[in-house]
Amino acid sequence: MTAEQRKLIYLDHAATSWPKAPGVVEAVTDALMNDGANPGRGSHAMAVRASRILFDTRKALSKLFGIRNPNDIAFAANTTMALNMAIQGLVKAGDHVITTSVEHNSVRRPLYQLEQEKDVEVTYLRSDEYGRIQLSELEKAIKPNTKLIAVNHSSNLLGTILPVGEIGEIARKHDVKLLVDAAQSAGIVPIDVKALGIDLLAFPGHKGLLGPQGTGGLYIAPEVDLEPLLLGGTGSQSEAPHQPLVRPDRYEAGTPNTPGLAGLKAGVHYVLNETVQNIHTKERALTERMMEGLLHIPKLRLLGPKLGEERTGIVAFQAENIDSSELSFILDQHYGIAVRSGYHCTPLAHASAGTADTGAVRASVGIFTTEEEVDTLVTAMTEITKHYGN
Amino acid sequence: MTAEQRKLIYLDHAATSWPKAPGVVEAVTDALMNDGANPGRGSHAMAVRASRILFDTRKALSKLFGIRNPNDIAFAANTTMALNMAIQGLVKAGDHVITTSVEHNSVRRPLYQLEQEKDVEVTYLRSDEYGRIQLSELEKAIKPNTKLIAVNHSSNLLGTILPVGEIGEIARKHDVKLLVDAAQSAGIVPIDVKALGIDLLAFPGHKGLLGPQGTGGLYIAPEVDLEPLLLGGTGSQSEAPHQPLVRPDRYEAGTPNTPGLAGLKAGVHYVLNETVQNIHTKERALTERMMEGLLHIPKLRLLGPKLGEERTGIVAFQAENIDSSELSFILDQHYGIAVRSGYHCTPLAHASAGTADTGAVRASVGIFTTEEEVDTLVTAMTEITKHYGN
Repeated sequence: MTAEQRKLIYLDHAATSWPKAPGVVEAVTDALMNDGANPGRGSHAMAVRASRILFDTRKALSKLFGIRNPNDIAFAANTTMALNMAIQGLVKAGDHVITTSVEHNSVRRPLYQLEQEKDVEVTYLRSDEYGRIQLSELEKAIKPNTKLIAVNHSSNLLGTILPVGEIGEIARKHDVKLLVDAAQSAGIVPIDVKALGIDLLAFPGHKGLLGPQGTGGLYIAPEVDLEPLLLGGTGSQSEAPHQPLVRPDRYEAGTPNTPGLAGLKAGVHYVLNETVQNIHTKERALTERMMEGLLHIPKLRLLGPKLGEERTGIVAFQAENIDSSELSFILDQHYGIAVRSGYHCTPLAHASAGTADTGAVRASVGIFTTEEEVDTLVTAMTEITKHYGN
Repeated sequence: MTAEQRKLIYLDHAATSWPKAPGVVEAVTDALMNDGANPGRGSHAMAVRASRILFDTRKALSKLFGIRNPNDIAFAANTTMALNMAIQGLVKAGDHVITTSVEHNSVRRPLYQLEQEKDVEVTYLRSDEYGRIQLSELEKAIKPNTKLIAVNHSSNLLGTILPVGEIGEIARKHDVKLLVDAAQSAGIVPIDVKALGIDLLAFPGHKGLLGPQGTGGLYIAPEVDLEPLLLGGTGSQSEAPHQPLVRPDRYEAGTPNTPGLAGLKAGVHYVLNETVQNIHTKERALTERMMEGLLHIPKLRLLGPKLGEERTGIVAFQAENIDSSELSFILDQHYGIAVRSGYHCTPLAHASAGTADTGAVRASVGIFTTEEEVDTLVTAMTEITKHYGN
């Protein structure tokens, strides 16, 4: 690590976590060096060890999310792939889907394509500027052909936490499946698929679970019959021309990312040990501290829930008269603070927040973020808005 | 590495390479520790470095495969995903596809599904027991609605190398697209997409390119208009409800596997430095040596091309009266030799070879395999067939 990198203040955890949890890099290295075989495709000792890594990772994730059968988890290369597996695999022509206006493009774009090409109808529940939806509107939107409710657990722009449990109750009552995009909540907000009534849970391995990029997954409730997105070799039932029905093979064609999943296993074990509740409490305190500091800066507008209300570790803001990409550039170049600017792949959330034309800067904390780092951001923003904001 | 692992004789390179090329593990570790940000999604320095890794990897692959524009390569989690991107993205209802009877399930299963569900017609060219097809039959099979010819470059069971250049000529002549599954040839047999007339090239990162599992890609010729398999965030044109058209973004939704691709870059650089021609020559010599040794063993039947004929580093065999999975178990437990037994996700190739009921043992060499290792396998097989084969 160079001196420059050591003093980097990384506030882009909503994009990916950095650094990774202790043990993650070592687990990846160890798998690459010693367990490099192809799991499930051979009976030799190294292939068996590789299979074991995958199973252990599934088991740790099951514990984290309250999943009874680890084989109901299918690994994916990222949350986007998991969301596409869920949406493309479940929704058929003639179906109706309900979603919100603050979804990430990884939900919005697959749904838009189904609308355009497959005779699927999509209702976008209007979110208010704080990212909240009306549950009564959700229930009113349900129709006889409603197949799926697809919602984010926490907006990647606003940090709002949607009441997934209550949405799950409504879904169950009307026999509609619930897909939750946990890109910003897995490992950050407690999730129990059973208690929350989640049928499909798409999650990243490299954000709140502190594992490597290239990992993620989809929980598929046992009673959900999803068509697989990828077809191919599974090392099982090779003679069948169709994908085997057994899980997780049905949803995991091709060579898995064993080293990445070994790293994810280490990350999930770290999260289980710290507990998600403690992580959430810590990140919440850091976020409040950041908001309190930023709220004192004139001409700075904060997006998302108000101070004191529940949110994940995301604080997006917009400075009057300073372009958001210029702002993030100054933070990076002059202060060594890494944040994200722009539209964050969620144009509808910007429309809800009234920032569709300007974009915003997003600062996001992680489990390893310190109070000093948060204070440095606040100081930097105070200086920048004084110098540039005219 | 334990003592047990040090003396492991790894002859399962057709499943995945092991060990990886020098520098691969270090590159993965370095990316995880120092360049862990999300490329293309932020302007901060770490995100820029991550973007650079991806671009450098694309550039190295372009050099390897004779690709003019690195952005015509889309990364994928494995070859299976790349093949699904190609097949599902190109073939529409009413189209006709030509393939062979020795394809891997990653080609066979997507095509079978299109046959079953989408009014797509598939012609399976009959391969002989050596895995060869008749080019005259290929040309005869082309119809006015033929959209695609999908062939493996080298069978993962038989090691046969198909004459892709001649197939490419026929494809071009009839204005049909050519998809090549390079799972067993990328980095092992010279490939120049332009010279061979390849429109779509699916390749793994973790086999002949000596990179980590979880990597691979698809070359998409500039004039091929493929529908993307995954839709979602790309960090570009966030406001558009549809996938952006710009490459590679169009085909790469979601967070990429930056550490894996950093490792792949190191692997490809190693291959470029060794040259594919030299690797092929070396593996060919090892394969011939293995075949010569095994051919002396009574009641052992070798699959694929005859001694002296072109093939990749794959030698599959079947011992009379010994089950192939038992054979691989003995090789693993008693001799520390890792091979693969079973059906290798390619039941049609087994049918062609006459081993559909028995399966086979597959030994496959890599660039780091030694003559001593090959000789140990031959000795082991001599002993086993003597002791067990009655």
